[in-house]
Amino acid sequence: MASSQFHGLQLVRVSSPSQLFVSTAFQHGRVTFQRKSNHLVYASTNNFNRDHHLQSKVETVLDSLKWDDKGLVVAIAQNIDTGAILMQGFANREAVATTITGGKATFYSRSRSTLWTKGETSNNFINVHDIALDCDRDSIIYRGKPDGPTCHTGAETCYYTSVFDLLEDQQSGGDKFLLTTLNSLESTIAKRKGELGVPQTGKPSWTRRLLLDEKLLCSKIREEADELCRTLEENEDKSRSASEMADVLYHSMVLLGLRDVKMEDVLEILRHRFSQSGVEEKSSRKTQG
Amino acid sequence: MASSQFHGLQLVRVSSPSQLFVSTAFQHGRVTFQRKSNHLVYASTNNFNRDHHLQSKVETVLDSLKWDDKGLVVAIAQNIDTGAILMQGFANREAVATTITGGKATFYSRSRSTLWTKGETSNNFINVHDIALDCDRDSIIYRGKPDGPTCHTGAETCYYTSVFDLLEDQQSGGDKFLLTTLNSLESTIAKRKGELGVPQTGKPSWTRRLLLDEKLLCSKIREEADELCRTLEENEDKSRSASEMADVLYHSMVLLGLRDVKMEDVLEILRHRFSQSGVEEKSSRKTQG
Repeated sequence: MASSQFHGLQLVRVSSPSQLFVSTAFQHGRVTFQRKSNHLVYASTNNFNRDHHLQSKVETVLDSLKWDDKGLVVAIAQNIDTGAILMQGFANREAVATTITGGKATFYSRSRSTLWTKGETSNNFINVHDIALDCDRDSIIYRGKPDGPTCHTGAETCYYTSVFDLLEDQQSGGDKFLLTTLNSLESTIAKRKGELGVPQTGKPSWTRRLLLDEKLLCSKIREEADELCRTLEENEDKSRSASEMADVLYHSMVLLGLRDVKMEDVLEILRHRFSQSGVEEKSSRKTQG
Repeated sequence: MASSQFHGLQLVRVSSPSQLFVSTAFQHGRVTFQRKSNHLVYASTNNFNRDHHLQSKVETVLDSLKWDDKGLVVAIAQNIDTGAILMQGFANREAVATTITGGKATFYSRSRSTLWTKGETSNNFINVHDIALDCDRDSIIYRGKPDGPTCHTGAETCYYTSVFDLLEDQQSGGDKFLLTTLNSLESTIAKRKGELGVPQTGKPSWTRRLLLDEKLLCSKIREEADELCRTLEENEDKSRSASEMADVLYHSMVLLGLRDVKMEDVLEILRHRFSQSGVEEKSSRKTQG
């Protein structure tokens, strides 16, 4: 279960609702939230309760939002790791307050005139790590991690239909969703992997060749990493570093594809590492150079 | 200037409005859009004009949207490479049609009761590569590349305020925006780089050490790439591949930080490569193993 501690990079995941954590921010005297018995409590530096003070702060933040004539703001849910937009709804004051204190993306249903927490029927909650307000304060982002597919169709996000697929009479199914670049690349590699059993005529794609030849793949990954380093060592043009990094990323992602590892998992590892104490990189350090 | 050809991965960027391109999709007989003299025209396979047919298709798509009682849908603009949510507005039928045909994110201003194209005053247009519809068809994503900062404050996105910063009395300025994991990591590395001139007491962070020691950095990048390969070669647990990939990514991003190369540029390179013809990986291939 994800915590709802919201300190920019200092996002802490706790493994069970009853597992308390004390964050760096807490130790440094900044206000933090602790999850206790499946609900969040406010905690303060000096171990005395500042609930009242914080609740009034929450009210102040809620007061600062520009609610429309129906008392709503637009609320967008986004996967904090991949950047995928999961769904969009509306939130009234109570929905935002519930999301802040409960840590699960909560909306106001205009059709049913009722509060609803995404996942209350499907169990696919969106665990909110941060809430972003736009400059006008009439639109918010719930940035978090979904427990499962967000869309009622079973799709990862509700945005699985491309206008331009429709214009081309391409079928847009629930298994497809529109992607950012990294997700698109991952999806293409997965597709090539799925086609491995299908005989092909003509020259195989490079991805197919890499997927079929682990030795080639590994030699390419090592080679591209070396070339990336050489752009620094030999002070090559900046554009060379970008291009070599693209090579490193692509070839490494083919390896991940081969091993059924999702980039989202990799990004989650990085997020957790950088959530650690002030010396956030320590955990990236396995050997000291 | 970005093209507005919308075929999933087949996104093609043209360097000037008058530069026509013929895409693979076009060659394969699928309908495509071509930019000509700064406006988009429909083109067909067989070099005769199917404008009318396509325009009626656009109308059919527009008919399928669930416009609210004011004739609007929620329209979210997202950076196709980084996944950053740039802004959110509303769009009426004309705004969506204009975005489809003009390729620039266009909204309907409820306060001014008028159509407006983001960038018409600032020149910071959002060049739309695809439009995603949600399952309810009452919310859309303009997925594209911004020409510059999207927010009128000069911030990259309008969503630069964190509710939890506000609760902690942290200042949220226009220079800060809420980030997905990869952007957060990049931002942390940039911050460490900015602190290099400041003397520090205590043990330096790992990122600081890497930034100060190119030899150490390069040896780590090569080492982590090697370790990633070994998870495949030695058939280690999947979680090891994820963890080693996190190491590769982190250390490579420190190198990018040192060279002032943005991950967005790397992702854009990947997007362009994978926009190429059917054999989309060819351009990733510099040497044949």
